[in-house]
Parts: sequence; structure tokens; C-alpha cells
Amino acid sequence: MNRYVSSLELLSRARAGETAAIGRLISRAEANVAEARGALSTIYQKAGRAHVIGLTGVPGSGKSTLVAALTARLRADGEKVGIVAVDPSSPYTGGAILGDRIRMSELARDPGVYIRSMSTRGATGGLARATLDAVDILDVSGFKSIIIETVGVGQSEVEIAKAAHTIIVVSAPGLGDEIQAIKAGMLEIADIHVVSKCDRSDANRTLVDIKQMMTLAASASEPPEWQIPVLGVSSHSSEGLDNLANNIKQHRGIAFMTETGRRRQLSIANFRLGKTAENILIERFAKASAAFIPSIAARLQRRESDPYSLATELLAASLT
Amino acid sequence: MNRYVSSLELLSRARAGETAAIGRLISRAEANVAEARGALSTIYQKAGRAHVIGLTGVPGSGKSTLVAALTARLRADGEKVGIVAVDPSSPYTGGAILGDRIRMSELARDPGVYIRSMSTRGATGGLARATLDAVDILDVSGFKSIIIETVGVGQSEVEIAKAAHTIIVVSAPGLGDEIQAIKAGMLEIADIHVVSKCDRSDANRTLVDIKQMMTLAASASEPPEWQIPVLGVSSHSSEGLDNLANNIKQHRGIAFMTETGRRRQLSIANFRLGKTAENILIERFAKASAAFIPSIAARLQRRESDPYSLATELLAASLT
Repeated sequence: MNRYVSSLELLSRARAGETAAIGRLISRAEANVAEARGALSTIYQKAGRAHVIGLTGVPGSGKSTLVAALTARLRADGEKVGIVAVDPSSPYTGGAILGDRIRMSELARDPGVYIRSMSTRGATGGLARATLDAVDILDVSGFKSIIIETVGVGQSEVEIAKAAHTIIVVSAPGLGDEIQAIKAGMLEIADIHVVSKCDRSDANRTLVDIKQMMTLAASASEPPEWQIPVLGVSSHSSEGLDNLANNIKQHRGIAFMTETGRRRQLSIANFRLGKTAENILIERFAKASAAFIPSIAARLQRRESDPYSLATELLAASLT
Repeated sequence: MNRYVSSLELLSRARAGETAAIGRLISRAEANVAEARGALSTIYQKAGRAHVIGLTGVPGSGKSTLVAALTARLRADGEKVGIVAVDPSSPYTGGAILGDRIRMSELARDPGVYIRSMSTRGATGGLARATLDAVDILDVSGFKSIIIETVGVGQSEVEIAKAAHTIIVVSAPGLGDEIQAIKAGMLEIADIHVVSKCDRSDANRTLVDIKQMMTLAASASEPPEWQIPVLGVSSHSSEGLDNLANNIKQHRGIAFMTETGRRRQLSIANFRLGKTAENILIERFAKASAAFIPSIAARLQRRESDPYSLATELLAASLT
């Protein structure tokens, strides 16, 4: 018979370096287990020292390979690196599908690296909450750099990358028109641009394109202490990796020591507060409304009234 | 001086075939204009005759080209076709970026085709609401087939494709591993599988792969009256298009005339009711909480307490 290990005990084990305890804590956070709430509260209040790096890019941009190369590079400095990968997954079968299975088998053997995939399944808002909880758990467990990797398509997914101190947007040469167009939507959130696969002959065009788009999009709100760099990197030949690592370190200084960084941290707190509150609100509503939904949905299906009126009716019935 | 045209007047103009009125109504629905609510209520109650086709696939799968080819094919039968494209767009600059600019310039000149891009910017839940309102507006304006095109990455985006009578998932040969993995998450929602670019030599492998995945995923809940087809289509040579159109017509029969179809419609009503209610709820909360957020977010940033506790506090302060 297994004793249920309390989340507070898992927390002390995690802080003592026990990898399995980190995984179990993250699972409890993901499942929103009530018992874990006290531990997560302690964790949040102790966290805040790790450098959180958001890394996003369209599918095919070579994100995962870059994360692996960057992690190896950061490890060379001796610091522990955590990776939280937000993967698209089936809305039905659930579970992250890329995950530990495909990615980075060598890194996974390094005890100074922790890799975790989060499923995009489940309630909206819940994903951001669980991802940021996982970051905090890694933070208090001594990981000094934590990379949040998200696919750069989908509103909720891009949003999560924004909840980082330093946002890296990865582009790659030779992707199709559709993907290029999606990319345009992410250009403005970058603190650092990376063009991956820079050993390819067409990479230079992508570098030039991004610089051009940045000129067009240049805004007055840009912080004076940071010129957004556009860096070519080849994960295979390691070209540009040192440069990327140096830029990340420099931006870490901005994140932790300047007014610009403080504003970013406040806006992350704002985002997290709002998401968490929405989450709780929608959960409460889901419970309160369950009994009323079948009959009201049936009336909607019969088109006896419209979605707005019936939703208002549902809210009134549920919230009294 | 322009007189403000009421939404009810726009509605009668739209039903009389005035394209500009359709566009203005959709814009009001998208902006959630209160004045349009009465018209949208009438619209919803009159709608329900069009066949709504959800078409989704990963970036690079040739979705837009297929939509164009399919639309031309459906137009050959003389029926009006509406297209609502849900495009990834910048969270900052807003606006749909693919949109009418790139896509389907010939079709856009056909008065029997209406093309509209919706921005993925804005409140979560709002996108689904606005998209389905747009579908209803096209429905009551005499469009007999309405295609909702969404990129098959991102939770909210896939969700919208599911609010259709007939769901088409587009795959393509020769995409990278990462994209293949994302695709796996969409396989289970398909009523019809399409492998685009089937004139390519490697298309057959993709066809075989999908059939194999389907065997693994085959569930007992599959309706007895429908065997999910896997169709090769080439948008360029038109190979397979007739076959696709026939399959769509057959599935339309299921959507409108069987118990399976009725269950789908009820689950769409459920989805729509829930999304609309969540939307209203979050909007009310956003208004009510605005005054309390700055001080509570600042406390969160200073880590005086944790997100869950402070969000609960924010909710209590806002909802009293």
C-alpha cells in the first residue's frame, strides 16, 4: 500500500533534487489538485529567481532542435535548465504527443536538465495556469534557466510564451506562404529573433525579411536599453549559439534590473492574476450551470431563442 | 452625413442579396455591437438550413487552395457558397492577415461566393461566437454551403471547426515530423479525411498512414451509417474533387436526417451556449474587476501571496 505523499513533502524532496518529486508536483498542479494548493502557494512565494525564457515559432521552424542546442549550451555554464514544452495534442485522447518520447533523448539523461510536456487539452486558461505553476516548481527546485517552448500558432499558445522574461521568436528559411503569414503575427512579441537553419543558402533572405518587417513595425514603446537582435543560428553546426546565449544573458539583466523588466513582470502578474480568476470563475460556473444546460441547450437547438438570450438565461439561473 | 443603418435593415438588405450589408452585419457581430443583438436573434432563429462544413489542417497542408477548388466545384451546382476563414493574426496589430488579400482572387469576383476572414485576436470564446454568428448571417442570406476554414493548431481554432455539420481534416504529404505530430491530434474529429497534393509521389504513404492511425483510433462511438473516408485530392489537377463533393453531400444527409446528425447539432448547441455564457461572464467580470486589479496584481508581483489566493480575493471583491 502506497502512502499518499503530501505535496509539501514532495516540495521538500523536489528542493533536495529528487526529480520524481518534481514530476509528481507538476502533475498535481496540472490536474489542479486541491491538496497541492498550499504547497503551490509556498512555491510561488519562494519563486522568482529563475530566468524564464519563452521560445516560440511556427511548426517547422526548428524550435525543438534549437531548444536542445540552446539547453546544451546553457548547461556548459553549469546551471540547471528546465524545459516546459506546451504541445498541441488531441482534444480527445489527451496527453502530450510530442513530449519526452521524441525529443532530446541525450539531454533527458542529464540530471541537470528537466523536460516536461504539458498537454494543450483541458480548460482554456488552465493551460497557462498549469504551465506557469510548472515553471515555479522548477524555479524553487534550483533550475536557473527555464525555457517555455510553445508552438507559435493559436491564441492561448502565443499568450503563454509572452509570460516570460525573455521572448525568443524562431523563424526559418524556406517555409511556405501560409506559415510566413502566421509568423508575422508573432514578430512583435520578440525580445530576440532567431533565424534557425542559418547554414542554408536561403537563410539570409529570411534575416533580411525580418529586419525589414521590424523596421515597419518599430514602435515608440520599445525600451531604450534594448535593441532587438536578429540572430542566425544553426543548431546542427552550433553556429550562432554562443551569440544567442550571450544575448539571452544580456536580456536577463534587463528583465531583473531595469524599469522595463519590472514593467514586464507586472504585466505577467496581471496576466496570471486574470487567467487564474477567469479559470476559477468558469469552473464555478460549470458546476453551477450543469443542471440547467440540457434543457436550455435543447431549446437553443430547436432555435426557440438565440444564443445570447439563452446564455443570459443560463447565467441568471446558475448564479442565483 | 451618413445615417446609421439599423442592423435589422442591414438584415433585410442582406437577405435581398446585398453583399455589402452582409459584411457590415458580420462586422457588427464581430465587434459585439449591442444594437445588432436583436437582428442576430432573428437571424439565429431563421438560420439552420445551410450545410456548415468545417475544414481544418496544419499549416502547409494546402487548406486554402483546397477551399478554393472545393468552392469552385460546389459553385458548379449553382448554389451559393460562403467561406469564413479563421486566421491567425497578430495579438497586437490585430486584423486578419491572410484574408481577402491573398486568397482566391477569382472566386472573390463571383457574386455567388462570399469570403470573410475573422481575426483570432480578441477575447477567447469571442472568436467562436463571432464565427458562428457570421455563419448564421450567411445562412439566412441564402448561402447553402458554408465553409469554416481554420488552421488546425491551437485549441480554440480546432474547437471552432468542430462546430460544423461535416468536419474535413486536410493532410498533405511531405510535411515535417513536428507537423505530423500535430496532425495526430486532429485525426479523431474528421468526418472526411483529405490528403491534398495527391499528385505527389509520396502522397500514397500519407494515405496509408492515416488509414493506419484510424484503425488504431477506431472507437465504438462511430456512427453505423458513416464510414469515414480517406480521399486523395489534387487541387491543381482537380483529381478527387468530384469524389470529395459527393462525400460531402452524403454526409450532409447524415447531418440533417439522422439521429447521429441530431446529436451533433445538440452538441454544437451545447458548445455555443457554453461559449456564449462564458463570454458574457468574463466580460462582466472584466468590467467589475478593473478597479481592483492594479493593487492586487502589484501584490502578486511582490509575491506577497499566490495567484490562486489573490484571484479568489479579486473575484470576491469584484462580484459583491
